[in-house]
Amino acid sequence: MEPLVSFLEIKANPPHLGDNTADLDRLRRAVAEQLGGREPRVAWSRTAPVAAAFRAAGFGGTAVLNHLAAGVELVDFLPGLATSPLAMALDLGTTHLEATLLDLATGAQLARAHQENSQIRFGADILSRIHHAASPGGLAALHAAVLGDINALARRLAGAVGIEAAAIRALSVAGNTAMSHFFLNLNPHHLIREPYIPMVNVIEPPAAGELGLAIHPAAPVWVLPSVGSYFGGDLVAGVLACGMAQGEEVTMLIDVGTNAEVIVGNRDWLMACAGAAGPALEGGVARMGMRAGPGAIDHVEYDSATATLRYTTIGGEPPRGLCGSGVIDLAAALYLGRLIDLKGKFRPAVAGNRLVDSPDGPALVVAPAGAAADGRPVLFAQTDLDAVMRSKAAMYAILTTLINQVGGQFTELAHIYVAGAFGRHINPRSAITLGMLPDLPLATYVPVGNSSLAGAELVLRDGDARRAGQALVRKITYLELNVNQEFMLRFSGSRFIPHTDHGLFPSVPFFGDL
Amino acid sequence: MEPLVSFLEIKANPPHLGDNTADLDRLRRAVAEQLGGREPRVAWSRTAPVAAAFRAAGFGGTAVLNHLAAGVELVDFLPGLATSPLAMALDLGTTHLEATLLDLATGAQLARAHQENSQIRFGADILSRIHHAASPGGLAALHAAVLGDINALARRLAGAVGIEAAAIRALSVAGNTAMSHFFLNLNPHHLIREPYIPMVNVIEPPAAGELGLAIHPAAPVWVLPSVGSYFGGDLVAGVLACGMAQGEEVTMLIDVGTNAEVIVGNRDWLMACAGAAGPALEGGVARMGMRAGPGAIDHVEYDSATATLRYTTIGGEPPRGLCGSGVIDLAAALYLGRLIDLKGKFRPAVAGNRLVDSPDGPALVVAPAGAAADGRPVLFAQTDLDAVMRSKAAMYAILTTLINQVGGQFTELAHIYVAGAFGRHINPRSAITLGMLPDLPLATYVPVGNSSLAGAELVLRDGDARRAGQALVRKITYLELNVNQEFMLRFSGSRFIPHTDHGLFPSVPFFGDL
Repeated sequence: MEPLVSFLEIKANPPHLGDNTADLDRLRRAVAEQLGGREPRVAWSRTAPVAAAFRAAGFGGTAVLNHLAAGVELVDFLPGLATSPLAMALDLGTTHLEATLLDLATGAQLARAHQENSQIRFGADILSRIHHAASPGGLAALHAAVLGDINALARRLAGAVGIEAAAIRALSVAGNTAMSHFFLNLNPHHLIREPYIPMVNVIEPPAAGELGLAIHPAAPVWVLPSVGSYFGGDLVAGVLACGMAQGEEVTMLIDVGTNAEVIVGNRDWLMACAGAAGPALEGGVARMGMRAGPGAIDHVEYDSATATLRYTTIGGEPPRGLCGSGVIDLAAALYLGRLIDLKGKFRPAVAGNRLVDSPDGPALVVAPAGAAADGRPVLFAQTDLDAVMRSKAAMYAILTTLINQVGGQFTELAHIYVAGAFGRHINPRSAITLGMLPDLPLATYVPVGNSSLAGAELVLRDGDARRAGQALVRKITYLELNVNQEFMLRFSGSRFIPHTDHGLFPSVPFFGDL
Repeated sequence: MEPLVSFLEIKANPPHLGDNTADLDRLRRAVAEQLGGREPRVAWSRTAPVAAAFRAAGFGGTAVLNHLAAGVELVDFLPGLATSPLAMALDLGTTHLEATLLDLATGAQLARAHQENSQIRFGADILSRIHHAASPGGLAALHAAVLGDINALARRLAGAVGIEAAAIRALSVAGNTAMSHFFLNLNPHHLIREPYIPMVNVIEPPAAGELGLAIHPAAPVWVLPSVGSYFGGDLVAGVLACGMAQGEEVTMLIDVGTNAEVIVGNRDWLMACAGAAGPALEGGVARMGMRAGPGAIDHVEYDSATATLRYTTIGGEPPRGLCGSGVIDLAAALYLGRLIDLKGKFRPAVAGNRLVDSPDGPALVVAPAGAAADGRPVLFAQTDLDAVMRSKAAMYAILTTLINQVGGQFTELAHIYVAGAFGRHINPRSAITLGMLPDLPLATYVPVGNSSLAGAELVLRDGDARRAGQALVRKITYLELNVNQEFMLRFSGSRFIPHTDHGLFPSVPFFGDL
């Protein structure tokens, strides 16, 4: 598998007058004997520490090796037989960081931690942070903030297994292109200015010490490469985690965050695009929207017999709001219960007294005040519905534009991987009912969880994955939707439930009489 | 030739919406197109400066490439068509530093400078400096001293051609093993303790900025590798400069400094050894000894017709003392004039009133007070002669032990290269007369000047030389003379003029009647 860092047991003969080669050269040769003759490189900055540690250990112990594209680097020497190298995988999100600690000898996950992105104080969204980076000291402050967050996570992960953060021997980072720039202290100025150019896509791994990280100074920092300004290492990680670029069968990956990012292809070709379909689907638009957490309404059904909405909440707690999957379920249930029409507008004739006036105009009472967690009813307003309609239309338009661009059909897709919290909680049946996702057998849809983090873990464990990740940069074609006429046309056609062309959704009841 | 640093003209297309690859990736690809597809590496620390310079230059200009063993590194980008890369070659001597500035595009030498080694304030010889390195802050002080000297030389070389030191793009360093350790801030402790082990022989080139040098921070610093504690990069450089390891013919290199270091071999094998034969031969032992400089007596003949010594001085100035070649000439002349016997003792019967009493015992007046530069006679004492006898015996014993060890004969040597000031000034005829060098046709002896500096220049110019230098580390067998019985026997046999076995020196008159 060739993990990014490995430990190698070394027993060398001590020097004597008949064998007086230098300490470090002796160690390099001992390593080479076990690596098929390849001598590892040793950077000048590691020369004295490694050679001194080798001698202090009596010319036997554990060599620490970094496996990089340019070859194997010898970076440390430990006395005795050291335990497995530990490494940290990081999903470096715009709002949220999630990390795991891995044992690279076994691949096992030892600990998990997460943390808000403290760059938020410079701006909630990437755009405002990029503007902040241009102010005096701005980039340095953004860089320092993300380093501080990562160091805090490293200390927490290390503490969970009773080690120091400096005992972490490697780090992999999957972030969008802007976050990768902030992390690496690179000017993001041109990311948001036409023609939207990153400073760099493929990064030579720095040592953690160069960046000022709290993990071992010689730990390699493997940053998943970007494909472009709008296709970052987080998505490259996702492609790796799903194995999309390995097989012959064509699959699709949908990752919904602030944007909806979609990739389709196989080992021979991959095409990607992104569009603003996301907020409503992550609970970011609905007034009562919330992240998937305790008290979030995550599933909704319409019981036509009793003409009532039935819902469940995460943790079974009294409802506080609606998470993304709840919003999709609710909208689908409202359509099936005919409480909304095919344009996504409330039908007062059916909704009746469930509709109330709210600061956002007409709103449906999903849970009355008496049932809700904080004594306030959970409402879902017409404006929320309008946002869901825009998001679902955008999503379907993105998917159809992309599949059409590659000359394919949805039915040819072996799988559609759905990443993130969205993928974990969503009911594909509801999304199909709304016309957000194509009308395919439900088994086609595979939730893959945090595929960015999974990809970051993969590159720590597997050299083939690291090489495949670098190769993806040239393999992935990015389809720019901002200037795409077809997308705009398809977006308009998708603003009905399930679609203007209802023949595309045979499994969804069509209420032509609405 | 593949110089260590090269400039490459780049004209890339500016990015646009249809070609939005990252700035640095664009530059790497443009370089790769001219390097047969090989993309250069860019260290993280150079990522932002190179990418920003490429964009600022309008995506065209000159790429600066370091050609290292691990591959090509892209380290800088200059606007427009830059002139040739300039590089500094350094002979890092224990007492003396000598450096040249090269144009790597043409190979031409542009400037030359030298400077005393300011480490001398911590100890005149390597041994005392190694002891000083063990004191608190000792190594750091020795390291700082040598960096200061190199920076002073770099500024002087740069000044000579009207540039800043920071415009020097590479440095090569040929020093003995201890000096290389001081330069690289490596602990030399075990160099002088049995079994005499360097911390490292083969060094991964650091960037000048890592070391704190005043030349360009991304300049590669190529340190000629050592073979062992007593065979350093200075000698590896000498072997490269003489081309000893390239051809089929067997040659020998003699480099006389504090030690006499000797290497014999060809492209298939090389054997080396060293011994304390040097001081007398560099003017370091004789009381009137001096470096080869103005006023040094450099050549002496005995005119048997007039029974007088005839000498010349460097620069034709009044004599101040004797340099190494003068000492050898003088001793040979004294022997031919029968003023000394075959044991190297003055013969008062012949020397007559040319012998005076001196603080060092009996001494010969080489130049009377009236002719000398400072009004004091140039004397050559019996103790000086004794030192010359020891040195010449050691030298011949080293040479014969070595040639015997490899199972060869002196007559099989195509050339004997003689390095340094010793080689430049010495009259091989005199050295043969004394029995210091073997009795071979004079054309066998080839003075090669500062071969360490020449080797340092070679590795700047030529990738094959860099690879050959690294390969020498494993190719050269080092013969330890300190524990060698044969050497001790041969040393005793060599303490006569020309030798106990005068049949070895058929061209030298043998005065059996002395």
